[in-house]
Amino acid sequence: MSEFERETAVSEVAPLHYASELHRGWRIGKVPNGGYVLAIAGRALRAALPHRDPLTVSAFYLAPTRLGPVECRVEILRRGRNTSHAMARLYQDGELKVQVTAAYVDLDSVQGQSWSACRAPDLPPMVECLENRRSELEFHQRLDLRLASGSSVFTSAGPDRSGEFSGYVQHRDGTAADVLSLLMFADAFPPPVFSLFGVLGWVPTVELSVQIRAHPAPGPLRARLYSRFLTRGVVEEDGEYWDSEDTLVALSRQTALVRIPDGSQ
Amino acid sequence: MSEFERETAVSEVAPLHYASELHRGWRIGKVPNGGYVLAIAGRALRAALPHRDPLTVSAFYLAPTRLGPVECRVEILRRGRNTSHAMARLYQDGELKVQVTAAYVDLDSVQGQSWSACRAPDLPPMVECLENRRSELEFHQRLDLRLASGSSVFTSAGPDRSGEFSGYVQHRDGTAADVLSLLMFADAFPPPVFSLFGVLGWVPTVELSVQIRAHPAPGPLRARLYSRFLTRGVVEEDGEYWDSEDTLVALSRQTALVRIPDGSQ
Repeated sequence: MSEFERETAVSEVAPLHYASELHRGWRIGKVPNGGYVLAIAGRALRAALPHRDPLTVSAFYLAPTRLGPVECRVEILRRGRNTSHAMARLYQDGELKVQVTAAYVDLDSVQGQSWSACRAPDLPPMVECLENRRSELEFHQRLDLRLASGSSVFTSAGPDRSGEFSGYVQHRDGTAADVLSLLMFADAFPPPVFSLFGVLGWVPTVELSVQIRAHPAPGPLRARLYSRFLTRGVVEEDGEYWDSEDTLVALSRQTALVRIPDGSQ
Repeated sequence: MSEFERETAVSEVAPLHYASELHRGWRIGKVPNGGYVLAIAGRALRAALPHRDPLTVSAFYLAPTRLGPVECRVEILRRGRNTSHAMARLYQDGELKVQVTAAYVDLDSVQGQSWSACRAPDLPPMVECLENRRSELEFHQRLDLRLASGSSVFTSAGPDRSGEFSGYVQHRDGTAADVLSLLMFADAFPPPVFSLFGVLGWVPTVELSVQIRAHPAPGPLRARLYSRFLTRGVVEEDGEYWDSEDTLVALSRQTALVRIPDGSQ
């Protein structure tokens, strides 16, 4: 069992009521990564629903989570032949921390036309990318992130003003990414505003939505996460995730809040 | 009172329980426009919450709505000083049709840094755009939509293969757009896949999320709605909405299902 599987495991303690735990290894500062937390909700939803794969998932982050036990209560909204819908709520000490809504399908049964306006990003080989294993980020104990662009902000060169990070991501233990880990990888890159203003503190997520398109082929994912519009401290972060066979496997969008301390930029 | 205000009005029949009605004038075929339905939920949320303006709203469409009475039940998830969170559920005949989650703020109190990678789209004057008042679309009784690009699919010229529509939108009765009408305008353009495959039938929305950035200044909005990735019939539709003063007022993303009939390409 991979670290990710073990540390996102859920156990059903009553009908549609799941117990899990937020483990060390996934935190940004003191707060478990939002994508990691979402993956636990995603696993509970998979256990509860007749379909296995998230098609689109939206999570609202109401309060920061912390290490330790987490309760996940699922409510099924609709069971359809091809799609089922449910809501999952994550509580700690009785406080609602994250509210998730999702549509689940069996991705292998999805059929229809395909078309794309964009190809997978053309990145330099992984060995040439900066391994972003900053010691202060516990998250990088689990996440192997190699930045192909935007990394200068983590060096003396400073921000490249691009509003974008791109690179490779994979599980640190080398296990293959599945669709539930895509929920985690969707919150894995540094906030693109770092490339504008330098490394800021915590950039809290208001909402994170992830659209899953395919089961990823084994191997590192290539991804880009970018922001285009920062409006009075509110920013979107849009992500695209491609597998080793050049298939788009997920899109993401989050709304986050940016607080720039005096003296930055 | 504008048509939009009158036809999205809600009345509180019990605590956090609102009655409304889906009116004629807003349908695509037999189904009321998803953005119009979302605006009703948005108005109920405004009535229930201490903050007035949606910051980010996510709606899952579980079953098609129809004309007539609609029940909206709001559950408040968290009341914060700057942000409050709630869920709204829309029912018809006791059936859950739409599930909405939202973060509300007072937009005028939002403060922070601004930056943009993109400007408002440079469109030809509104009088030069095709007025998309196709008689078969009841929705155009309420929506004044002028396409600046992509309109060829509605003429003998056929699809332009761009994956995008751009143009102007405003209320048909000439009233100014407010933040709740942005929820409706976020579902106002034709599905961008029409520009690839020609005019298809109904393209059902799985999820629609709207991120509001500012109160729009009076005047028509300029907008673009585009798709980049169609994967086995699943497509994202991303929108950007600008006011007459070149301010980005909203972003949108929806996940939709595309069924291409035999004989189309």
